[in-house]
Amino acid sequence: MDQIKVFAPATVANVGCGFDILGLALNSVGDELTVRKTETPGLTISSIHGAEYLPKEPEKNVATVAVQALIDALEWELDFGLDFELTKKVAPGSGLGSSASSSAAAVFAVNSLLDEPFEKKELVQFAMMGEKAASGVAHADNVAPSILGGFTLVRSYSPLDVIKLDYPKELYVTVVHPQIEVKTSDSKKILRKDIPLHDAITQWGNVGGLVAGLAKGDYDLIGRSLVDVVAEPVRSMLIPYFNEAKEAALNSGALGCSISGSGPSIFALTTNFEQAEEVAKAFSDLYREHSIDAIVYVSSVNPVGAEVIS
Amino acid sequence: MDQIKVFAPATVANVGCGFDILGLALNSVGDELTVRKTETPGLTISSIHGAEYLPKEPEKNVATVAVQALIDALEWELDFGLDFELTKKVAPGSGLGSSASSSAAAVFAVNSLLDEPFEKKELVQFAMMGEKAASGVAHADNVAPSILGGFTLVRSYSPLDVIKLDYPKELYVTVVHPQIEVKTSDSKKILRKDIPLHDAITQWGNVGGLVAGLAKGDYDLIGRSLVDVVAEPVRSMLIPYFNEAKEAALNSGALGCSISGSGPSIFALTTNFEQAEEVAKAFSDLYREHSIDAIVYVSSVNPVGAEVIS
Repeated sequence: MDQIKVFAPATVANVGCGFDILGLALNSVGDELTVRKTETPGLTISSIHGAEYLPKEPEKNVATVAVQALIDALEWELDFGLDFELTKKVAPGSGLGSSASSSAAAVFAVNSLLDEPFEKKELVQFAMMGEKAASGVAHADNVAPSILGGFTLVRSYSPLDVIKLDYPKELYVTVVHPQIEVKTSDSKKILRKDIPLHDAITQWGNVGGLVAGLAKGDYDLIGRSLVDVVAEPVRSMLIPYFNEAKEAALNSGALGCSISGSGPSIFALTTNFEQAEEVAKAFSDLYREHSIDAIVYVSSVNPVGAEVIS
Repeated sequence: MDQIKVFAPATVANVGCGFDILGLALNSVGDELTVRKTETPGLTISSIHGAEYLPKEPEKNVATVAVQALIDALEWELDFGLDFELTKKVAPGSGLGSSASSSAAAVFAVNSLLDEPFEKKELVQFAMMGEKAASGVAHADNVAPSILGGFTLVRSYSPLDVIKLDYPKELYVTVVHPQIEVKTSDSKKILRKDIPLHDAITQWGNVGGLVAGLAKGDYDLIGRSLVDVVAEPVRSMLIPYFNEAKEAALNSGALGCSISGSGPSIFALTTNFEQAEEVAKAFSDLYREHSIDAIVYVSSVNPVGAEVIS
């Protein structure tokens, strides 16, 4: 095999209460990546569609940084090179794990091209190096679901321990991405370094509730647990009409609604496609009313994560 | 029915990572309580075996305080009185939910005697009033498992939302109670009011891992998640030979080991009875070696909680 084309989904990190640890994969949106073996050893990026301003230098682009981490871990002398053609469907700065999709797609593609020296779960650690290049911190809450699919829990970073959570099949995600940019680094800065123990207890009560609700298929419990008292109260201030959007989603039957990752995208969970579409309409109407461009996605939860297209 | 005798189990609160929200019920130890209808309206306590120094004034004893909360909520005019005979098998100040067992037994007994005006889950809110009388704070992490059995999660206090968690049937608990007293109020005081966000994230990662591990029956994940970076590092200083006891439990094959509630009791989880006995021997040997009296319990997880004996 000299060439492979893969897809890695966009993701919703945090999922309400699970700041820095929970994430889910979307079905309908993500990055496509073609990797080709070339004659000259080394990594090259020949094209980036959809976000042409991203760096093509292999030591700066998250995709090739992640792949380099994988190759370094292998300790193989590759007698060929690898060229990357990236098609981005989710804009950087959306809060939908844009950089994570690229890193995930890249390590998954190269691992496949090299006849899978690593298991899928092991790829998370390499994709995290892409995240480090993007934001300065090696987060896993987007790369884990982008690679593995479904809902993932990063139980621990040291050592890395990523868990695939059980969840009910009838679960839909509606996402609205208001067209303003919030940088992850800015969105991290406004969080407090210490939090009241009382708030922390509330948060881990909800994490326990969400994981239990997903495992039991208890939709009401899932909804009650989609509460974030740590990041949402601060970050929502950076998102125009967040409170109105959340209210509109809940009024349209969403189980719960919160910020996707560090925003500005907002996600809502529903139990069926029709309701997910209703929430989408509510989001669209709200931002149209306020003359803010917004892209809306409706998706089931992606059960497989990164996959080979051809 | 004019008389009822009930049992309510001792409990392990926090269960490692779940400070203030998680708890489990023990099988072999707990409080017994007999409640009799009497002619003169009002609550009386005729005897307390096993902890004679506890107050017999109904407005001061946690059992009758909890029952009064239940009666107040009913808004019934009872034309009879209720007399309580309490037999305590777990010492107050053990960290095994001693006051919670009494409160749980009392509200469960009276609810049964009154032909169950409340569902079992609704009794938690009344038993919490007993906890408030005991420690100043209306905690639910001991009363919930004592009433409901199994593993319980207090997702939220306001509104109260108690979840029964799924867990694998082959799970044993070994508890050692070194015979020193640690008051819950003292043990609360030494905790910080604010915690680093980084520690909070570690903690809710482990809560998610523990709930997922219990639901999946993944014993290894349960063990990896039994980590407490918030209370244990501080409270363990009040417990003689805590680190040695934990090491001994892990060396004897325990999945994990931490402080039960606010201590000084220490608990360890194992996957079979023989290993639970081995951990018990390790605990006993350690405290004997250091000439500290210690009571050791070996128990499966109690699946039913409070129950009628006769």
